[in-house]
Amino acid sequence: MRPHVFVNVAMSADGKISTKERRQVKISGKNDFVRVDRIKAESDAIMVGIGTVLADNPSLTVKNPDLRAMRRQEGKDEDPIRVVVDSQARTPPDADILRKGTGRRIIAVAGSAPRERVEELGKLGTVVVVGETAVDLAELLNILYRYGVRRLMVEGGGTLIWSLISQGLVDEVYTYVGSLIIGGKDAPTPADGQGFLNEADFIRLRLRDAEPMDDGLLVRWDVRSEP
Amino acid sequence: MRPHVFVNVAMSADGKISTKERRQVKISGKNDFVRVDRIKAESDAIMVGIGTVLADNPSLTVKNPDLRAMRRQEGKDEDPIRVVVDSQARTPPDADILRKGTGRRIIAVAGSAPRERVEELGKLGTVVVVGETAVDLAELLNILYRYGVRRLMVEGGGTLIWSLISQGLVDEVYTYVGSLIIGGKDAPTPADGQGFLNEADFIRLRLRDAEPMDDGLLVRWDVRSEP
Ligand SMILES: NC(=O)c1ccc[n+]([C@@H]2O[C@H](COP(=O)([O-])OP(=O)(O)OC[C@H]3O[C@@H](n4cnc5c(N)ncnc54)[C@H](OP(=O)(O)O)[C@@H]3O)[C@@H](O)[C@H]2O)c1
Ligand SMILES: NC(=O)c1ccc[n+]([C@@H]2O[C@H](COP(=O)([O-])OP(=O)(O)OC[C@H]3O[C@@H](n4cnc5c(N)ncnc54)[C@H](OP(=O)(O)O)[C@@H]3O)[C@@H](O)[C@H]2O)c1
Repeated sequence: MRPHVFVNVAMSADGKISTKERRQVKISGKNDFVRVDRIKAESDAIMVGIGTVLADNPSLTVKNPDLRAMRRQEGKDEDPIRVVVDSQARTPPDADILRKGTGRRIIAVAGSAPRERVEELGKLGTVVVVGETAVDLAELLNILYRYGVRRLMVEGGGTLIWSLISQGLVDEVYTYVGSLIIGGKDAPTPADGQGFLNEADFIRLRLRDAEPMDDGLLVRWDVRSEP
Repeated sequence: MRPHVFVNVAMSADGKISTKERRQVKISGKNDFVRVDRIKAESDAIMVGIGTVLADNPSLTVKNPDLRAMRRQEGKDEDPIRVVVDSQARTPPDADILRKGTGRRIIAVAGSAPRERVEELGKLGTVVVVGETAVDLAELLNILYRYGVRRLMVEGGGTLIWSLISQGLVDEVYTYVGSLIIGGKDAPTPADGQGFLNEADFIRLRLRDAEPMDDGLLVRWDVRSEP
C-alpha cells in the first residue's frame, strides 16, 4: 500500500524548472502561490530530493495562518510531514526544512550513508534507511503509508520526479506553465534522470484540465494506470 | 526588416521534444497534424536547423491537396520556401527537404563552410552565406524578407529556437503539449543552447490561449516586445 502521490511543479513555457546554475527563479505568481499553499495544507506529507534542499533550501511549511489553524483544528501538525530523499545523508543540519515549522521530518537515506551524518540527522528528524546505495522509493512510500500518510505531495526536483514517475509511483501531475522562456540544454526540467528511449515505455497521461492562472497556465494531468 | 516569425513545437508534458537519442517521437495527434499542415500552408517559408534535418529528415511539404491547390491558386509554389540553418553545409544532398515537394530551398551556411559541400548544395538550392562560423540569424531573416518572406514558421529544433528567441527574433510561440512523459536530463527541449542565467534576461511571453487538442493542449504565446 502506498499514499496517493501527486507532483506539483512550476516550469517555464520551454519546460525548465530553474536555470542551468540551478538558481531558484520566480516562475508563477500570487494566485499560484495561494494554490500551492492550499494543496500543501491538504497533504499529509510533502517530499523533495536532496538536490532541491541544497539548491533552494526550502522550508516547505504552510504559510497561510488560516490553513495552519485549519490543520490544528483537525488535530494535525500545522505543517505536513516533510520528507527528504537523501541517500548519503547530505541534508545540512541547519537546513530550513529541519529548522522551520512544526511536525515530523523524515530523512530517507540509503544503507551506504555515512554513519556519522546519519546519527547527526537522527537528532533532528526520523531517519529511515531504505535501499542500498540510493533510496528505494517504492519501499519509502510503503513506510510513509504505515506512518499514516495517505496524500503525498512531491515538490521536485526533476531527478526525484523522474524516478518516481518512471517507477509508476505517481498518480497526478500538476504543472504550472509560466509565461517565460529560460532556455538551456543543461537547465533542470520536470523529469530529468535517464529518460525513456522507447515510445512504448513513455508514461501516458490524461488531461484533466487547464486553467489560466496569473500570467500562465495551470495544467492538471492524471497518470494513466498501466494497461 | 524581417518577417513575422513564429515557432511551432510539440513537447511532452515534461518539456521534451524527443528522446535523448534524438529519436523522432509521436507527441501530438490527428487534429494537431491538420493544424500544423494549415499553418505551414499559410507561411511563406519554413525553417529548421541542420540538427533536425539529420535527426528526422523531414520534407516539410504541405500534405493536404486542398491546401496545395489553394497555394497554387494564389500564384504560390505548393510548398513554402524551405530553409535549413546549416553553418557547415552538412545537409545531405539526398535529404527529403531538398528532394521532395516543390518550390525554393535555401541553405544558410557560414563563411567557414567547406567550399566543396557548398558547391554541391548550390546545385540543389539557393546557398546563402551569412555569418563567419555560425549562421547570422538576424541577417538571414533580413535576406528572407528581401526574398518576399513575410511570414516565417520555425519548426525547430531546440538549438535553433534558442538562438532565435534569445536574439529577440521571435514573435509568437505555439506549443503543443502532449499527454506523455519522456524524461531525461539530456533529451532535447523547445529551447536548448546556453540558456539564460539571470531572471532579468528571461524572454517574457503573454498567454494568448490554450485549447485542448487530441489528448493534449495547444498553447499559444505572444513574445512580449522589449520594454
Ligand atoms: N520549479 C519548481 O517547481 C521546482 C521545484 C523543486 C525543485 N526545483 C529545482 O530543481 C533543481 C533540483 O533538482 P535536482 O534534480 O537536482 O534534485 P532533486 O530531484 O531534488 O534531488 C535528486 C537527488 O535525490 C537523491 N536521491 C536518492 N535516492 C533517489 C532516487 N531513488 N531517485 C532519485 N533521486 C534520489 C539523489 O542524490 P543522492 O544520491 O546524493 O541522495 C539525487 O541526486 C533545483 O534547481 C531546484 O531549483 C524546481
Ligand atoms: N517535437 C518537435 O516539434 C520537434 C521539431 C523539430 C525538431 N525536433 C527534434 O529536435 C532535435 C534536433 O534539435 P537540435 O537542437 O539538435 O538541432 P537544430 O536546432 O535543428 O539545429 C541546430 C544546429 O543548427 C546549426 N546552426 C547554425 N547556425 C546556428 C545559429 N545561429 N543558432 C543555432 N543553430 C545554428 C548548428 O549546427 P552547425 O553549426 O553544424 O550548423 C546547430 O547545431 C531532434 O531530436 C528532433 O527530433 C522536434
